[in-house]
Amino acid sequence: MEKYELWYWPGIQGRGEFVRLALEEAGARYVDAARGPGGVAKMQKLMRAPPRGALEPFAPPFLRHGKLLVAQTAEILFYLGPRLGLVPKDEASRLRAHEIQLTITDYVAEVHDTHHPTDVSKHYEEQKREAKLRARAFTKDRIPKFLGWFERALERGDGEHLVGRATSYADLSAFQIVEGTTYAFPRAMKRLAKRIPRLLALRDRVAARPKVAAYLASERRLPFNEWGIFRHYPELDG
Amino acid sequence: MEKYELWYWPGIQGRGEFVRLALEEAGARYVDAARGPGGVAKMQKLMRAPPRGALEPFAPPFLRHGKLLVAQTAEILFYLGPRLGLVPKDEASRLRAHEIQLTITDYVAEVHDTHHPTDVSKHYEEQKREAKLRARAFTKDRIPKFLGWFERALERGDGEHLVGRATSYADLSAFQIVEGTTYAFPRAMKRLAKRIPRLLALRDRVAARPKVAAYLASERRLPFNEWGIFRHYPELDG
Repeated sequence: MEKYELWYWPGIQGRGEFVRLALEEAGARYVDAARGPGGVAKMQKLMRAPPRGALEPFAPPFLRHGKLLVAQTAEILFYLGPRLGLVPKDEASRLRAHEIQLTITDYVAEVHDTHHPTDVSKHYEEQKREAKLRARAFTKDRIPKFLGWFERALERGDGEHLVGRATSYADLSAFQIVEGTTYAFPRAMKRLAKRIPRLLALRDRVAARPKVAAYLASERRLPFNEWGIFRHYPELDG
Repeated sequence: MEKYELWYWPGIQGRGEFVRLALEEAGARYVDAARGPGGVAKMQKLMRAPPRGALEPFAPPFLRHGKLLVAQTAEILFYLGPRLGLVPKDEASRLRAHEIQLTITDYVAEVHDTHHPTDVSKHYEEQKREAKLRARAFTKDRIPKFLGWFERALERGDGEHLVGRATSYADLSAFQIVEGTTYAFPRAMKRLAKRIPRLLALRDRVAARPKVAAYLASERRLPFNEWGIFRHYPELDG
């Protein structure tokens, strides 16, 4: 089988991390292509001049696999899911996993807006006042609404998995948003912990899976930092 | 075939409109369920207590079809596309159409942020100052970036269709964002017009399709207004 090429900004977990977790859990042959020498220039060239017939990726991450170039995190995972054995193959299960991933996409966009509420092209420091307003609403209303939704999805399933009765890429992605939110908003997460026991237990189970644990301990796993999506600015953590 | 039930807030085009356009173009049997008497209460009940095995829709729109309940606009269209004959059935074409629709999802979220930059639960009037900042960056950078991407997708295809050589749901959705952006930000769109000739021609062709034209002239097509996603506030139109 052809090797998967993941293209994403080097130096941050960001949206690429959802794809990395799936590839790692599956033990897939892949390369994190933009982390090599000259990687960003190569990535940008591929974005401007994609293979014939392909769309320009609107933004990283994107995946190259054979002749195919696929962008949008949730779509990459929709494509990889059955190929990596990380989702049941029936249509209803694939739709369910994708719907969860699209909800994660919405959540990630809102997380990004907490430090970039008015202008994505300017630094956080230039929009701190507005960021405080946005983060206040986010920590008070949005984190509980989103994470509560995941908690109920577990409750209404088998209690341990978001899709079916085995680990899917949706579980891996849910792990990642719990990790990221805990990094960025530890106080808000501490307040919420009692209300999301199943989601926190899912986080622990995913972290303990042998391939995920090996990945997290490796240098392939980049640390969270203040250039990614999940940033820890204490002044935004209510 | 079972009738499609679309559930969405009555009174606005919003995200539901992308689904309506597909159902209308296909001449599908469907009901815009929440527009009936007591519709919103029924919709909210269905969201709190979905059928066994289904996810709670995180937000409208969602579609009920037989036993299936599907949420997330882009996923609804992914599901409907082949069933309504609005996308070629091969995997690469379906992925391409979906990738375009997901880019539209991102665009729509950013449009919404122009009038709700800091708190989705508060009125626009309570965040006007921040909205001006956000809208300035949006009209200056983001509209050209997004709509330019669609223009190039047409350029690199057959020049007239976003996917393959026939009208797909991606074309219908592209029509809708051109309409919406023209309503909300007429000055910004006027400045941009010369740079997106193929996209504007696509808009005209879609509007002239018999079923779309009949729909647009009917009372089923709600007018744009200041409760939806695309709102015309002159002070936000650079």
